[in-house]
Amino acid sequence: MIEVLGRSGYAGLTMDAVAMVAGVGKATIYRRWSSKAELLLSVMDVAGAPVLQVPDTGKLREDLVTVLTEVVELFSGPSGRAIRSLLGAVIDDPVLQEGSRRLPLANWDAAWETVVARAVERGEIPAGAGQSLAGEVGPAVLALRWLVTGRPLDHTVVTDLVDRVVLPLLQRP
Amino acid sequence: MIEVLGRSGYAGLTMDAVAMVAGVGKATIYRRWSSKAELLLSVMDVAGAPVLQVPDTGKLREDLVTVLTEVVELFSGPSGRAIRSLLGAVIDDPVLQEGSRRLPLANWDAAWETVVARAVERGEIPAGAGQSLAGEVGPAVLALRWLVTGRPLDHTVVTDLVDRVVLPLLQRP
Repeated sequence: MIEVLGRSGYAGLTMDAVAMVAGVGKATIYRRWSSKAELLLSVMDVAGAPVLQVPDTGKLREDLVTVLTEVVELFSGPSGRAIRSLLGAVIDDPVLQEGSRRLPLANWDAAWETVVARAVERGEIPAGAGQSLAGEVGPAVLALRWLVTGRPLDHTVVTDLVDRVVLPLLQRP
Repeated sequence: MIEVLGRSGYAGLTMDAVAMVAGVGKATIYRRWSSKAELLLSVMDVAGAPVLQVPDTGKLREDLVTVLTEVVELFSGPSGRAIRSLLGAVIDDPVLQEGSRRLPLANWDAAWETVVARAVERGEIPAGAGQSLAGEVGPAVLALRWLVTGRPLDHTVVTDLVDRVVLPLLQRP
């Protein structure tokens, strides 16, 4: 199904296309999923399995660069087109809103919190420092470039985000 | 058409629905727009007319708070649902990608550049200071909250962004 989504987007995710790719009859597909929305939520459960490895380099700056680079690779890699379709559908369909918690970035918060907690333990940053906004800025800027403006998703934007925005936010409570 | 989009999203934007709302025959609609994608691009031309007023309070901080508050109001206001549909469709359709330049935030860059240039003239910030990243952070965080995470779009996030991220980026080149 991710294959169908990646090729033709949510509009192309028909029960017919899924049955063909899966090599089964359409009745089989309908027995399992009664609507396209349910089908999409299933795709999300597969695609949304934790995809971000939580780095543990022993240094906050390295951990942050590593995890944001993973986000860039996720967006630019083979599943990027499918994620884009999922996002497009979720954004435009209130019924699917809950599905956003199953998106491939759903484990961002967990990865972020682990990386920050370790840095606090090591004494690199004070506890509780500006964490909520700091955690949103990286994925937000990368997603905007990827989805809308098309600006480069390169090493420069990752290190600029870390050195000029995220670290200062974490260092000054 | 914005009405149809706002009510039922891109999926509900059918030639039939548009003909009905416009009170004309379907043939008239087809004569003007040969496809749904073309219809959507037309909607964008209307909806994408400059919507952000460029503030000129004489102080950079006030200008930034004002223009980001306008973005929040745009997202939360009556056209928010329609913008969400446009974005969802644009994200999921490579053919429509060019349409993103006609989205309601298309004049963000112009508003941003004007506000920053005035502050440089007044000597509030050095010329050319961290402007590209600084200009992306505000709309990116607000859009992520609005479209995906559902975190609050309130005065606090606007002032946190201005005071803790945007102003520091502009002040230190």
